[in-house]
Amino acid sequence: MSNILSRIHSPQDLRGLTKTELRQLSAEIRSLIIRTVAANGGHLASNLGAVELTIALHYVFPSLDDRIVWDVGHQAYTHKILTGRSGEISTIRTKGGLSGFPNRTESPYDPFTVGHASTSISSALGLAEAKRLAGEPGNVVAVIGDGALTGGMAYEGLNNAGHFPGNFMVILNDNTMSISRNVGSMARYLASIRTKPGYLRAKNEVEQFLDKVPVVGKPIHRGISRSKTAVKHMLYNSNLFEDMGFYYYGPFDGHNIDKLVEVLENTKNIPHPLLIHVVTDKGKGYPFAEQNPGAFHGVSGFNVKTGQTSSSEDSFSSIFGNCLCELAEKDERICAITAAMELGTGLSRFASRFPTRFFDVGIAEEHAVAFAGGLAVGGSLPVCAIYSTFLQRSYDQILHDAVLQNAHVVLAVDRAGIVGEDGETHQGIFDAAFLNTIPGVTVFSPAYYEDLREDLRKALYECSGVVVVRYPRGGQLFKPHDLVPGKRLYAWGHKAEEAEVLLVTYGRLFSFTCRACELLKERGIAAAALRLDPVSPIGDDIVKEVDFTDKICFFEEGREQGGIGEHFAALLRRNGWKGEFHLKGISGFVKHAPMLETLGSLGLDERGMAEFVVTECETWRRKKG
Amino acid sequence: MSNILSRIHSPQDLRGLTKTELRQLSAEIRSLIIRTVAANGGHLASNLGAVELTIALHYVFPSLDDRIVWDVGHQAYTHKILTGRSGEISTIRTKGGLSGFPNRTESPYDPFTVGHASTSISSALGLAEAKRLAGEPGNVVAVIGDGALTGGMAYEGLNNAGHFPGNFMVILNDNTMSISRNVGSMARYLASIRTKPGYLRAKNEVEQFLDKVPVVGKPIHRGISRSKTAVKHMLYNSNLFEDMGFYYYGPFDGHNIDKLVEVLENTKNIPHPLLIHVVTDKGKGYPFAEQNPGAFHGVSGFNVKTGQTSSSEDSFSSIFGNCLCELAEKDERICAITAAMELGTGLSRFASRFPTRFFDVGIAEEHAVAFAGGLAVGGSLPVCAIYSTFLQRSYDQILHDAVLQNAHVVLAVDRAGIVGEDGETHQGIFDAAFLNTIPGVTVFSPAYYEDLREDLRKALYECSGVVVVRYPRGGQLFKPHDLVPGKRLYAWGHKAEEAEVLLVTYGRLFSFTCRACELLKERGIAAAALRLDPVSPIGDDIVKEVDFTDKICFFEEGREQGGIGEHFAALLRRNGWKGEFHLKGISGFVKHAPMLETLGSLGLDERGMAEFVVTECETWRRKKG
Repeated sequence: MSNILSRIHSPQDLRGLTKTELRQLSAEIRSLIIRTVAANGGHLASNLGAVELTIALHYVFPSLDDRIVWDVGHQAYTHKILTGRSGEISTIRTKGGLSGFPNRTESPYDPFTVGHASTSISSALGLAEAKRLAGEPGNVVAVIGDGALTGGMAYEGLNNAGHFPGNFMVILNDNTMSISRNVGSMARYLASIRTKPGYLRAKNEVEQFLDKVPVVGKPIHRGISRSKTAVKHMLYNSNLFEDMGFYYYGPFDGHNIDKLVEVLENTKNIPHPLLIHVVTDKGKGYPFAEQNPGAFHGVSGFNVKTGQTSSSEDSFSSIFGNCLCELAEKDERICAITAAMELGTGLSRFASRFPTRFFDVGIAEEHAVAFAGGLAVGGSLPVCAIYSTFLQRSYDQILHDAVLQNAHVVLAVDRAGIVGEDGETHQGIFDAAFLNTIPGVTVFSPAYYEDLREDLRKALYECSGVVVVRYPRGGQLFKPHDLVPGKRLYAWGHKAEEAEVLLVTYGRLFSFTCRACELLKERGIAAAALRLDPVSPIGDDIVKEVDFTDKICFFEEGREQGGIGEHFAALLRRNGWKGEFHLKGISGFVKHAPMLETLGSLGLDERGMAEFVVTECETWRRKKG
Repeated sequence: MSNILSRIHSPQDLRGLTKTELRQLSAEIRSLIIRTVAANGGHLASNLGAVELTIALHYVFPSLDDRIVWDVGHQAYTHKILTGRSGEISTIRTKGGLSGFPNRTESPYDPFTVGHASTSISSALGLAEAKRLAGEPGNVVAVIGDGALTGGMAYEGLNNAGHFPGNFMVILNDNTMSISRNVGSMARYLASIRTKPGYLRAKNEVEQFLDKVPVVGKPIHRGISRSKTAVKHMLYNSNLFEDMGFYYYGPFDGHNIDKLVEVLENTKNIPHPLLIHVVTDKGKGYPFAEQNPGAFHGVSGFNVKTGQTSSSEDSFSSIFGNCLCELAEKDERICAITAAMELGTGLSRFASRFPTRFFDVGIAEEHAVAFAGGLAVGGSLPVCAIYSTFLQRSYDQILHDAVLQNAHVVLAVDRAGIVGEDGETHQGIFDAAFLNTIPGVTVFSPAYYEDLREDLRKALYECSGVVVVRYPRGGQLFKPHDLVPGKRLYAWGHKAEEAEVLLVTYGRLFSFTCRACELLKERGIAAAALRLDPVSPIGDDIVKEVDFTDKICFFEEGREQGGIGEHFAALLRRNGWKGEFHLKGISGFVKHAPMLETLGSLGLDERGMAEFVVTECETWRRKKG
């Protein structure tokens, strides 16, 4: 089969193909993508939508002098396949395999390692200015979806790129979707220019019309000639992107390779910023995904023939969504906000049950948090659900537009901790640390579903100010058999107070600390486990509670420097505690691999913890003689 | 004199005034603002520009049911004067006096405590939705400058507000300026709709023209009627704000109270999002400020008669700007980026000397950092200068668009630490802590000008990845007489190694630790002082260097929780150090007051430090018996 694809080792090889072969290549690639994602999971619908566009881009821009910058990067599988990585595509999202996103360390064809939305125009403009300053050849192209265009950063990029003194291409890949259907005024605006009266046709017609307008009598003539100018002014400056300084071309059929190649060839030498509007179908070529692109945005694998995705089990997200619905039934002040993550954050039921109290603000995490602050100041009870990694966008808004207002905003932080296959741009390993730097924020970190429910209730009704409830991707891990809600300190086979060493942690790592206690017992070490929830503030009662031990090992599924562990140590010290404190968290970025495997290689599973307890304590003793 | 102003105790009192009296009131207020800012310092030009607009707003919306949300808030003096605070206006920006910005704790007329740009639409939309959900009366108005409109967050707000199902007013206060002249495509676009052919006039004329177009012959008739529709479609959907879902009104003269009142009265009941475009003159009514609004944006006081502002002495900003110019003379890869802070960051000389390598990106800190990342990946050597408090906007971009790219970007972080009179929304007390949570960032924190020069050189030529050089507002403090560049450890009257206690700090606090050592000596305590620079990473050599002492007091002009001190303690602990560690940083938000006074009240001047050393160590000893 894959006759043509097997001949493509780099984008240069595309140049030898006929247009018919290019179309056949797109079919081969599409089939490869479907097989790959069915096996490995990944982003299906967005990748299927961008096949022809990517082929056309690499056909017209095959050189490494040209730079193609993918926004978000969840549409870059075809790009990987065409740039020498088709042989490794079966390893995508697996440990040691290709990343599911563009990655600088993987290929010279990936100028940036990406995963967050709305960044491409800014990054690409930097590349373009660097080229200009150094007098280097080549085009720079940013490819951005209409979803990512709802992010303010994309607008900041447009605002600055609009006066770039040379060719600078922004390809708007308009599939009418973020992960869910795209929202907001921009989405409606794009719809208006996608539909009749066709923008370009209207432009042409009006122009012809103005040329043909007959001139009858002098008074009207004066009016006509002045108004002709005004109309022409509006015509040539009447599209939002033109208002922003771009030449606008489109909309074009994003699945017509011939047309796309023609447009790119015709525009690549125009010394001006260009916005090329391409309309694509998310999920194109795989009927199940075309019909339900939301469900096939990010999947963990599926049956190619039946379109059956793995059944959705309970997860922290679904528990959160259901619990919030129950609370909202009884309290009509409760609102829910999501930044284009209705499905992922488990809010679909809330959205259909309480449509007037549900706000999908688009990929706009900054706005989401400030908007929640406004709702709270106005007397509502907003719960804003954002993935941990995307909440990084809201650092200033949490601080300036929520905390400083003393606004009672609940942030439901999903995907906190290791996320697994999405890899280093998506790991939720910074929120605990950066929230730790903001005054007055309460941060809950439940380990189990029942904790999540209870923490959410507390966050709404027993706390004030900004309250975070952070929980991991997927489901809860194994519980100790004697788990008691609210009980912090556990030991097995001996009293906690008799433990030689205390293992402290928060969130789901508690499951591993419990098992590590068992492993340590096998080695003859009596250990106890303590879980923190909330992790901020940490009460004096807890500091006193651990006073019995003179050896603490703290485990953290997140940034170690500036994190909860360092702060916990400071509290102990302030209380006069003088024992050994050993800290094990995460220091750098973490590559893609299954979650449990990743925790294992970070030394944050039960084995790693037990090992750490034994060796660290030993080393420390040796150090001080 | 102030006859009319003395009668205004709340906005309700405006309703009794004639239009002539309103105009007289604006003159009285303008005069009061000039006198106040001349004495106390503050934001002059932006406040003078907004006098009439504010009077008109409170005239039309006198009730607390109505909510006026000021963007940035540096134009809110008239608002304070009209809402019962005119008697206290002379205390503005002084310790215990009025804040220079809207403040929730100060008045029920201030719905938000603000200071950062581009937030008003999001916050106001939250208020409006809360009102709608609760069925409460009143209008919500966001007042935003054209400068703040360059920030992506404002666009996110517009994108979401454009489909609000009720009256929602955004007043665009267009003075063509950020702090400096406004930049980017949006600025050019606003200029285009401000100037001829007057937008509304053109609209009317074209409409009349279309109605009058004579119809000659059938073929043309068909063309005309279809094209008429197309033109009308464009007319009514041809303004960028209309494209975003708003009804657009304007531009109006922002100094004509009668007209402004008329417009607000006529539009306040329209159940739709409205954008009301008002053109104002920054500095209006004070010739010196009209001529040079940039210089009168934020001032520390001036002579009313001569317009003489306090002469600009050397500051960290000017040293930075000059030093960067010198380096850029020899290295043409060096670029400078500012987010609308050319003057404040000391980059004016660079901008005129190297215009092609200077980028003012508008109030767009997110874009600024990602753009710098792109420049670096493209081979340039970008130096991006941003105030500490505004760098909070860039947390995700530093992490995702610079560090993760291993891009060699230098962030020059100005106004790090206590800024003084601008108060809690502007204190640069979080950057050290939040940068501490990002892997692989090098953070320099110079105490003196010569350190700054050396750190900047090192950042550019001896480091890789993202390198931060952070320095305070204003000038350097007193130096110890025996300061040696690069020397970290100091003691006087005894060897450092013989000290009973070691005072550790970074940045300008080092001046105070030196003096605190003297004070401690008077009390019979032998102390030494150590300064950290860089503060991240902290090398093993330093950890070993302090091994001589068993008592360390760490002082931090920034967030204590999650900060450098807690991390330093963790490094010591890891090295097996077992001494007493006492930490004194900043825990919450810090109100406005002069910088030295603020440091004093935080216990971070020499007296506070000496006191801390004595009492903390004593308490600790008592605690452990």
